[in-house]
Amino acid sequence: MKQLMDKTETMDYVVEPFQEDFTGRLSWSVLGRKILATAGAHADNRGFGIKQLLPRGYSWVLARLKIEMDTMPRLGDPYRVETWIHSVYHTFTDRCFAIVHPQTGKAYGYAYSTWAMIHFDTRRAVNLEDLPDGGIVAYADAEKACPVSPFRPVRMRGGEDEFSREVDVLYNDLDVNRHTNSIRYIEHILDLFPASLYEAKRVRSAEMYYRGEAYYGDRLRLTRLRQAVGEYAVSVDKLPDSDKGETKPVNACLSRVIFE
Amino acid sequence: MKQLMDKTETMDYVVEPFQEDFTGRLSWSVLGRKILATAGAHADNRGFGIKQLLPRGYSWVLARLKIEMDTMPRLGDPYRVETWIHSVYHTFTDRCFAIVHPQTGKAYGYAYSTWAMIHFDTRRAVNLEDLPDGGIVAYADAEKACPVSPFRPVRMRGGEDEFSREVDVLYNDLDVNRHTNSIRYIEHILDLFPASLYEAKRVRSAEMYYRGEAYYGDRLRLTRLRQAVGEYAVSVDKLPDSDKGETKPVNACLSRVIFE
Repeated sequence: MKQLMDKTETMDYVVEPFQEDFTGRLSWSVLGRKILATAGAHADNRGFGIKQLLPRGYSWVLARLKIEMDTMPRLGDPYRVETWIHSVYHTFTDRCFAIVHPQTGKAYGYAYSTWAMIHFDTRRAVNLEDLPDGGIVAYADAEKACPVSPFRPVRMRGGEDEFSREVDVLYNDLDVNRHTNSIRYIEHILDLFPASLYEAKRVRSAEMYYRGEAYYGDRLRLTRLRQAVGEYAVSVDKLPDSDKGETKPVNACLSRVIFE
Repeated sequence: MKQLMDKTETMDYVVEPFQEDFTGRLSWSVLGRKILATAGAHADNRGFGIKQLLPRGYSWVLARLKIEMDTMPRLGDPYRVETWIHSVYHTFTDRCFAIVHPQTGKAYGYAYSTWAMIHFDTRRAVNLEDLPDGGIVAYADAEKACPVSPFRPVRMRGGEDEFSREVDVLYNDLDVNRHTNSIRYIEHILDLFPASLYEAKRVRSAEMYYRGEAYYGDRLRLTRLRQAVGEYAVSVDKLPDSDKGETKPVNACLSRVIFE
């Protein structure tokens, strides 16, 4: 019987200079990248990472991600990202994250995510419960607490204070798969809010639903709508390219951002 | 007599997932931030860093920066940033950087930069040769080789293939001083070039002249002009805000980018 590794992967980081936002807190951009990098290390070290999947024509796709932070570390503060598989169900797997102080163990916050494994060519999702060796299922740990509030569908109606901005998908937006990096959407979304809001409040929660991919040269329209005090729904839509005969926008991403 | 520390500060990094561009090489954005972070550690550890200056009302201002890379590390590759003071002259100091492989010592590339120390309120530059204790002068090492080609003024005339884009200064552009982060200009500048150029060539050199600051809500116009094969001059200009009675654009930054 194959020896299982620890179900949880742990990586330690420190907030380095130029990783803070203007309020002096770790930026969501850097936090998001560290969260995904830790997930990648977890999967690679247990035999079901991109490293093992890509040569066989498969990859992981992030379907949704919710990050809730009670506090953010500041310049020089250490932080640890722990990640583990919560559950595996048909073609999806849920992965949890705890962001903690490595010495005190105090949680800065938590994150919860849902992933699918797809074949590059067919775009079909794999039934994750049927993988050889039990694969990922053997690593699931539904007991370990991940106190993130449940996902809640984002609807772009009701509300007020509507505001839109259009951006082009450019060199810095792309990851090695040549589509817009999942975390880059969070950056563009946080750019929709005025500096005065960041001075008065801080982002407590970012909830992302990834629904379509955007490529170099695509034009995105980001629309935000305030639905409660400090709570915003955001839609990111790929605008139609008339050269390609497209006539309607296609949703690339929905999001809810909560300031407190 | 005070014991001097080593004149060179050395910091080791590894290219982590989500730190590459779409070609799989370390992004200029991350490289630039590591270069500045290493400079900050060098100064802080030797008594003339932001940590010591801010409480007295002073800060460092980056006037120009040239980064030349023979190769870029890729995912998982280690790289070391070494930095030292090359020289101190009146109100300026030149600081060099070597980006090397920590085991083989082979250079990925070098960078050269010029800085001034200014008083926050008066904006006046300090004569760096007159600091108490010899200060920074005692750390200068003009002998250590930093083979970066000399700075060459950027002129926005001649050339062809002119292209402009306007961007707003938003949340993600700001550093803790609340003006556009020096490295963010490099990101915006590299976003001026098409994906096809990055597929055919790679950026060998980025040369930056910082001339004015941009704040939240400012609108910037970036203009690029091809002046030789693979060589582009770029101007970043703050557009006038008619609400403030401004009538003319003000130059924020000039740059030369060389692809090879």
